[in-house]
Amino acid sequence: MSPRGRRPAGADTRGSIVEAARAEFASVGYAAASLRSIARRAGVDPALVHHYFDGKPALFGEVMILPFSPAALLAQLRSAPTDQIGQTLARNFFTLWDGPEGRVRLRAIFASVLTHEEAARPIREFLTDEVFTQVATRADGSALPLAEAKFRGGLAAGQLIGVAILRYVAGYEPLVSASVEDLIAALAPVLQGHLVVTRSDDAA
Amino acid sequence: MSPRGRRPAGADTRGSIVEAARAEFASVGYAAASLRSIARRAGVDPALVHHYFDGKPALFGEVMILPFSPAALLAQLRSAPTDQIGQTLARNFFTLWDGPEGRVRLRAIFASVLTHEEAARPIREFLTDEVFTQVATRADGSALPLAEAKFRGGLAAGQLIGVAILRYVAGYEPLVSASVEDLIAALAPVLQGHLVVTRSDDAA
Repeated sequence: MSPRGRRPAGADTRGSIVEAARAEFASVGYAAASLRSIARRAGVDPALVHHYFDGKPALFGEVMILPFSPAALLAQLRSAPTDQIGQTLARNFFTLWDGPEGRVRLRAIFASVLTHEEAARPIREFLTDEVFTQVATRADGSALPLAEAKFRGGLAAGQLIGVAILRYVAGYEPLVSASVEDLIAALAPVLQGHLVVTRSDDAA
Repeated sequence: MSPRGRRPAGADTRGSIVEAARAEFASVGYAAASLRSIARRAGVDPALVHHYFDGKPALFGEVMILPFSPAALLAQLRSAPTDQIGQTLARNFFTLWDGPEGRVRLRAIFASVLTHEEAARPIREFLTDEVFTQVATRADGSALPLAEAKFRGGLAAGQLIGVAILRYVAGYEPLVSASVEDLIAALAPVLQGHLVVTRSDDAA
C-alpha cells in the first residue's frame, strides 16, 4: 500500500470513494462511469480506488449495499460449465436474496427503481453490461450477437425478478413458502433455455 | 331493470358500488369479498350490483382501473386449446399493457404493491383465485393438485411481471424496443412449460 494521491489514505477515504461512486453512477450511469472518473470526483488518485476496490463491479456492489459480492458472482458465472449456467444463476440468486438482509435490500431496490428513473439506470446497465451479456454470450461455447444476448438475458432476468417480487414483496403464497431448492429446480431449466442456445434450437 | 334496494338506482349508484368494492377489497382481500358484502357496504340491494357488474372479476377490473376486462380475459383463457394456453396468456398480457394507458396503470400498480402491503393482497388473491389457478388446473385436461397449480401459476406470473418491469418501468433496452410479437414468440413456450404438464413431464 503506497498512497501517492492528492489526498492521504485515511479512515474516510474509502467512504469518500463510495460516495463519489454513488454520485457518478447516478449521474452518468454504470456503463460510462470508470474507476478513473470516480477517483476524479472523489479527489483521490485512481490507484487508491484500485487499492480499496477490486474493480467496478465491486464498487457497484458497495454503492448498492448488495448483500453479496458482484465480482464473486460474475466469477462463478464465468466458470460454470455451460450446461450448469441456469442452475448456477438460480442458486446464486435465491441464496443471496433469501436472508432477512437480502429481502430488505431487494425491496428497497425495487421501490427505488419504480420511483426514480435515475435509480434504474445504473442497475439495468450493470445487469446488461456485466451479468447477463456475459452469461448469454457464452451460449454453447460460441458468442451470440450482442443484441440477442441482451434480449435473452432480459428474459432470464425477468423470470428471476418477477418471482422475487411475488415471493419477497407481494407475498404470493405458494412462492413464499416454497423452499429455495424447489425454486431452483423449477427455474434452472427455464433460465438455461433463455440463456443458452442448444444445437436443437439451431436445428429447429 | 327493477331496482328494489334500500336506495334508488341513480347516476351515482354505480360509482358508489365501485367505491364500496374498493374499500371491501382493501379491507378483506379479493377472496373474502363477495358481491353481497360489497352491496351491504354500499347500502344497495345485491341485485343492483349484479345489474351493473358481470361478477366479481368485472368489479375488480373497475376498481383497479384495469385497461381491459378481467372477465373477458378469463373467458379467453378458459376457451383456449390446452396447447395454446402459453400463447394466449402472453398475447393477452402484452396486448393489454402495451398501450400508453396500460403502461401508466401497470406502473401505478407496481408502485402501490411495493409501498402498501394491503394493496398487494387483492391483486395476488385475484391472480391466485381467478387467473392462474384456473389456467394451471386445466393442465393437459386433468386437474393438478391446487398447491402445485398455484406454484406453477406463480412461476408464469413471475415471468410476465419481471419482463413487464424491465420493459415498461426499468427501461432495459433490448426488451423496450422488442416487438410484442417477438416477446410472445419468446415467452409463450416458457409459459406453456410452467402451466401445462405434458406427458413427457410425467414420464421424466
